[in-house]
Order: sequence, then structure tokens, then C-alpha cells
Amino acid sequence: MNYLMVLKVLGNVIKYEALVMILPLIVSVYYGGGDTNSFIVTIIIMLVMGIFMSSINPKKKGFYAKDGFLAVAICWVAISIFGALPFYISGSIPSFVDCIFETVSGFTTTGATILQEVESLPKGILFWRSFTHWIGGMGILIFTLALMPSIGGNTIHLLRAESPGPSPGKVVPRIKQTAKIMYLIYLVMTIIQIVLLLFAGLNFYDALVHAFGTAGTGGFSNMNSSVGAYDNVYVEVIITIFMLLFGVNFTVYFHLITGNIKQAFKNEEVKYYFLIVFAAMIIIAFNIKGLNGDSLLTSFRQSSFQVASIVTTTGYATTNFDLWPTLSKSILALLMLTGCCAGSTGGGIKTVRIVLLFKAIKRDINKIIHPRIVNSVKLDGKVVDDKVISEVGIFIFAYMAIIVIALMIVSIDGMDLESTVTSVFATMGNIGPGFKVVGPIGNFSSFSPLSKIVFSFCMLAGRLEIYPMLLILRPSMWKS
Amino acid sequence: MNYLMVLKVLGNVIKYEALVMILPLIVSVYYGGGDTNSFIVTIIIMLVMGIFMSSINPKKKGFYAKDGFLAVAICWVAISIFGALPFYISGSIPSFVDCIFETVSGFTTTGATILQEVESLPKGILFWRSFTHWIGGMGILIFTLALMPSIGGNTIHLLRAESPGPSPGKVVPRIKQTAKIMYLIYLVMTIIQIVLLLFAGLNFYDALVHAFGTAGTGGFSNMNSSVGAYDNVYVEVIITIFMLLFGVNFTVYFHLITGNIKQAFKNEEVKYYFLIVFAAMIIIAFNIKGLNGDSLLTSFRQSSFQVASIVTTTGYATTNFDLWPTLSKSILALLMLTGCCAGSTGGGIKTVRIVLLFKAIKRDINKIIHPRIVNSVKLDGKVVDDKVISEVGIFIFAYMAIIVIALMIVSIDGMDLESTVTSVFATMGNIGPGFKVVGPIGNFSSFSPLSKIVFSFCMLAGRLEIYPMLLILRPSMWKS
Repeated sequence: MNYLMVLKVLGNVIKYEALVMILPLIVSVYYGGGDTNSFIVTIIIMLVMGIFMSSINPKKKGFYAKDGFLAVAICWVAISIFGALPFYISGSIPSFVDCIFETVSGFTTTGATILQEVESLPKGILFWRSFTHWIGGMGILIFTLALMPSIGGNTIHLLRAESPGPSPGKVVPRIKQTAKIMYLIYLVMTIIQIVLLLFAGLNFYDALVHAFGTAGTGGFSNMNSSVGAYDNVYVEVIITIFMLLFGVNFTVYFHLITGNIKQAFKNEEVKYYFLIVFAAMIIIAFNIKGLNGDSLLTSFRQSSFQVASIVTTTGYATTNFDLWPTLSKSILALLMLTGCCAGSTGGGIKTVRIVLLFKAIKRDINKIIHPRIVNSVKLDGKVVDDKVISEVGIFIFAYMAIIVIALMIVSIDGMDLESTVTSVFATMGNIGPGFKVVGPIGNFSSFSPLSKIVFSFCMLAGRLEIYPMLLILRPSMWKS
Repeated sequence: MNYLMVLKVLGNVIKYEALVMILPLIVSVYYGGGDTNSFIVTIIIMLVMGIFMSSINPKKKGFYAKDGFLAVAICWVAISIFGALPFYISGSIPSFVDCIFETVSGFTTTGATILQEVESLPKGILFWRSFTHWIGGMGILIFTLALMPSIGGNTIHLLRAESPGPSPGKVVPRIKQTAKIMYLIYLVMTIIQIVLLLFAGLNFYDALVHAFGTAGTGGFSNMNSSVGAYDNVYVEVIITIFMLLFGVNFTVYFHLITGNIKQAFKNEEVKYYFLIVFAAMIIIAFNIKGLNGDSLLTSFRQSSFQVASIVTTTGYATTNFDLWPTLSKSILALLMLTGCCAGSTGGGIKTVRIVLLFKAIKRDINKIIHPRIVNSVKLDGKVVDDKVISEVGIFIFAYMAIIVIALMIVSIDGMDLESTVTSVFATMGNIGPGFKVVGPIGNFSSFSPLSKIVFSFCMLAGRLEIYPMLLILRPSMWKS
């Protein structure tokens, strides 16, 4: 292990975090909520540690796959711990475990909260809480689209499965270049959404907060009853559309703006994603029609927002979907697992993996019917290697295995099964709300500290495509 | 497709079913419950059709993998339809869909029932109901251990994964020989259990019924409150031990009686199976201790019976485990999915598949840490081919996909989520009871006919390792 190199990377990341925290500091000074000092202290701590660590000059420059995975895992844990300091120092969240949970939930763009009430918190703190979503979304775009292929390891195969056509490293030969273009797309889309939300009637602060939550597919709101608080159809439509757009594989936008329109429209994952989304919206709309004397139009407004929110793993709500009929709740629970597209800011297993395995089942059946015909799985018109399919199968199994193990630990708390299961789904899939205790009007405050640590692990594992987090649990990783 | 050959096979199976139905006929004559005619009519129908169909003499003798899969699926559906006739003709179960559900549940050794009350039914009918378990158990032993390798197709690879060492076809070179030995083991174990149950105080009829349910890992009882009705610790211990024994891979017994003791003790699946079983028993015993003022000994008695019943997918109950704490229920729900060993009469995903995929995850992590060391998955000391792991991954995904699709259809009925989810788990895994509505004191009667058909499909799909049932749903299968 090249620990010194990992420390150096970590130092740079912490310096970067100190810089971005200047924005919530400005907000807190502007609104004067008494939280200014907490940001100043945290920034100083981070600058000192960051400058010291980043000045390390390791003799060995070599950086292997395992170092990369370790660096990624440690960086996400570290930014969460430092990012939790303002909550703790300002006294907004008294328990430090809760602070960690809330910050992990922010950076991993989950949006699960331990806060029973948010509107009374200082504006600077709430801004920081939502801003972590936006930064996390940026981080994950680069993690899956630019960094992973250079780090290597077997996740590169997954990525190859996710963005076929040109191999991901070749989208633009140089990583920095790719990163810049991705950030630009992300930034421009966020700005457009902010402007539209202003037109729809939100004030600047609320527009920023909700655009951050949408862009990162996070879901933190500064209102106790989430987006439902505005009861504004324009706001709902804008957020619905942008949630869906941020759930699309970003390579599609990349191809669109670089004029490669044919390539963009070839993407099968995005087609299936929209197919799933619209099917779910329509079935649920009919299923919940007449629930509170609602017309089909009203029920479609409800279903489309909630489906977009859950499938993109954002987690905003405009109604208490926990009261919906079982069919609708089953569909939502399923969407929690599948998630949206790979290479987006969203979480979950990802549509492309589900599509690939369904194709593999079809192939295996065809093999029995026509044993002499060569059957292979194709995606976007290209043959997918058997090894990729095997890795996707193992990935989904590992995903479910973590859910099961987390479920066992969390169920010690003795909540009902529905709350327990969906709380794990909601954190592992980086969604936010689940059903019952953790439903859209509930929160995670009543779980034990142990469960909250397990949830934090799940959020990080879900966000980092599992392997970096599993790696740090392996004892042999730490032997040199 | 060689349809004539498939019909011929079907004819033979129906003739065989007519013959085994003579036993419940004798029982019904002996006890005189008014159900005798229903058996006589059914036997005549089956003999006529069976003799006619088996006399077909197709010119093409060729029998390919797809014909084999089709024959297996059609035979299981057909024996269930014919087997349902006595219930319908005798008037014991008025709805024909319910009759089908009950018989499929019997032959697939599931043990899920639509009967709200069983004790008032004629003894011949109840005998037939339990006897279907025993026949189904026999059928599945031969299906997985002897027939599948000869049929070929890609399921052979799964089987190779399940019984490594000598490839399954080589256990004994000739299939008929293998079948005979397996049947002998099955028969002798059943007889020993019957004798022990008689010693424990059951009458001959009850001993037969419960031994059939145990051997087939089915779970139908002739008592309304299942095995709990006896409140007899000897009966419970005997059934617990035999449930666990019938959940073991039968190749282990084969090796044991052929003197290949070293090979028998090498079986990793069986080791992990017992490890899971004992861990679950102990955790649950401590979790439910003091629930009704119970001592640890009493709670261990409860937990060991219920764990053995669920993990082997039998489904007997001695207590209402639906009232247990969430941790215990979570563990039971997990055991419903995993099931017991491959090559046993039990259902579920099977321990060996779970073990293989956990080993694959470990390998993939090691690949990242030590990219230059050759990492391969080993089972019972032998390297497992990557292709097998890929197929196991796809199998588990297909298993979960069927659960999800079934869940969507069943949730239209609007039962609560816990009942809906576990009713699908319980049928797909061939277990019997789930939680709440379908809990150990509940039943499947309140579901819609559509749901009951879906459950029947799940029971068959779970029993036949999915692919035969998926095959009959493919339109291209039916084109010649």
C-alpha cells in the first residue's frame, strides 16, 4: 500500500472541501443565524490539515488499483467527518453520530435525515446541508466517468458495460478534459433549473437549495414537508423533469453537445429507463385515482413526481406515498432497488445492470431452444463480453448481500419489518425516505447509533459501487 | 419440437400417477369418508388417458434439451391438474382454482394451503394431499440428480456446480441405477421416521401424514394447528432432525452408503448449511427468550423447530412465529430465500449457490488487492469454472425477477406489503407459510384467483429450477 500517496490525495480533497465551504460561510454571514463561527472553525481546521497532508512528497509515486479504491473510500469518509463539524459546532445537531449520518447522507446524495424538523435551523447550516448534495453529485460523476477507468481494477469492466461504444477512457482522451465537460454540463443544467424555479415563484435561497437537491439527486429540502410545502404545480413539474434529466447517463449529454447525436440516441439504457418511468407513472396514477377523491389528472401529478423522485433516488415528496395502495408501494420499492442510469448522479443498482441480466436470461433460454445457434448478449448493438455479465451478476448479489447483512443488524432495533427493510433500501440506494417510520413524513432519528452507523456504511457502499467500501473491510488490504 | 414424444412421456407419467392413487383409495375405503368415488373416477380417467397417450409411437425418437425441459414442465402441470380431481369431485374444495393451487402446493412440496380448516376433511383426501408431497419429493430428487444431466442444456452446468467431485452423470454411470439408490435412501429414511413417530405416540395415520410432509419437505399436516397440535417434545425433535436430514444434499448419503466417506465429508455446502442453521437457531432462541415468559430451553425448542422448518422449506409450525420480534422474522425471511442444499427435496435458491457467489465476491476483491495473483473460486477443493459462476448469478437474478413480477401482480389484491412479499417468497421457495395473512395460523384463501394462479406458477418455477417454466412462456419455443 502506498499510504503516503493516499494521504496526499486526501490532503488535496480536504483543501478543496475547505474552499467550497466558503459559500455556506457567506450565506451564514448574510443571514446571520449564529452559525458563522462553526464554518470559520471548520475551514481553518481543514486548511491546516489539508495543506500539511498535501505537502507530503512520497518517494514512491506508484498508485495501483487498490490504492485508488482505498483513496476513494477514505476520502468520502473523511469529507463526511469534516463536513459534519459545522452541524456539531453550531449545535444544530447535538449527537455526533447524527451529524455524521446527516453529512454522509448529504455527500452520498441520499437525502435521508435524522432531523425531525428543519425549518428552525440556521440558513447557513441548511445551505451547507443541501450544498453537500451538489458537491457529492459532482464527485460521483467524475468517480464513475473519469476516475474509475484510470484507476483500473475490475470496476473498469463494469464501466465498460455501462458506457459501451467508445471505451470510457476514450470518450475524451484526457481525464481532466472529460471532467471539465461533465462539470460544465452539470453546472449549466443546475443554473437553468435555478432560473426556472425563480420564474415559478420560489425565492433565490429556496431555488438554490432545491436545485442542489435535484442535481445531486439528493433530496434534502429546507421545508419540513419537502417540495409539497409549496403546493405549486410549476415547481413540481420543473423538479420532476430535472430529476429525470439528472438520472440520465451523462455520456448521452456528452455525445449530444459534441454533435454525436446518433450515438446519443443509440443508448439502450436510457430508453429502458424512460420506459420504466412512464409505465410506473401510469400504473400508479390509475392505482391511486380517487384515493382522496382525486381526479386522474391530480393522481398523475402525484404519481409522476413521486416516481421521478424515487427512481432517480432523489427522495423529494409532494404527498405521503406511504398511504398508497400496496401495488403502488410495491412499484416504488422496486424502483428503490433498480435506481436510474449508470453515469448519472443517481443511485441504486442501475438500469443497465438490470437490462444486461434480463438479456442474459433470455440468452440462456435461447441456448436451450437453439443449442447450435451462437447466442450472445448485445447492448447498443455491440456484443457484451461474458465476463462483464458475470461481474454484473456478482455485483447485484453483493449489493443484495450488503442489504441483507445491514437488515439483520438494523432489525435488532425492533422496528416493524416494512420500516426496517425499506430503511436499508433507502440508504443503500441513496434515496432517502422509505415507508412507515422512515416514510416521507418520517425520519431516521429513532434508530440506535449502531443502526445509524450501518446506514452510513450502506449509503457510502451504495454510492461508491460497493467495492471500495468492501475493500477497507478486508484485513489483507491493510497488510503491506 | 418433438411433441409426440413429449405426449408419450406424459402418458407414462399419468399412468404412474393413477397407480400411486390406489393408496389413498385404499385409505378412503378403510376410513369410509365418502371420498372413495372421487378416487375411482380419477383413476379411471387417468388410466384411459395414460394408456392411450403412452401407446403413441413417434417416428422421430430424438429428444433434445428443449423437449426434455418442455416435458418436465408439462408433466408437473398435468399431474397437478389430474391430482386436483379428487379434491374437486369429492367436494372437499369447491373452487377448481383452489384445487389446482392445493395440488400444485402438494406436488411441489410447498405446503401452502387455501384451506381454512383441514380436520373435517375425509381421511382419504387428507392422505392424498400429504402423499403428493412424498411423490413430489421423489420426483425432484430424480429431476435434479438423475434426469437433468441426461437432458443436457445449460442446467447441467448448474448441477455440476451443485455436486462437484465426480460429474453428476458419473455418480453411477446409469441413470436408472442412480434413481433406484436415491429412492431407496428416501424410502428407508421415511420408514425410520414413521417408526420413530409411532414410538413418540402418534397413531399410524398421523405418523404417515407427517413423515410424508417431512420427507418431501412439504409441510401439509392433518391438524389445523400443524405439528403444534401434539405439543409433544419427542415428535418435535424427531421432525426437526428429519427435516434437517431431508434438506441435505442426497449425494452425501449416496457417498456414505457406498463407503466413500471421505468424499461425503468434503461437501462444503452441507457444512455451510448446518452452520447457517445452528447460527439462526441460537440467535433466534436468545431473541425470543422471555417472550411468553419462556425459558431459554423452551425458546430454543421453538427456534430450532421453526428454523429447521423454514430453512428446509418444509413449513410445519409449532408456534405462531409471526408474533416474533423483527430480528427473528428477518432471519426467517432470509432463510426462506436461501433454502437448504441442492440435490435435496427442499426448495429455495440453495446454499451452494449463495456460497459460490460469496466466494466470487471475495475473489473479485482479492483481484483488486493482488492483481497479479491468479484468483479462482474453489468448491470442495476444486476450481469452479467462471461460466458456472456466471450462470449461478443469472439464476439468482432470474429467481428474484420472478419474485418481483409475481409481487406486482399479487399486490393488486391490496393485502399489506408484508403479507404480499412473504406470500411470494413462501410459494417461490416452496415453503408454505409466510407472515401475517399467510402466517402459520393463516392461509392463502383470501387471495384472488389470479393471484392463486401466479402462486401456482411460482411454486412450479421454484421447484423446477426456473428454466422449464420460463421456457414454456417463450413464444419461439412453440414454433417448430
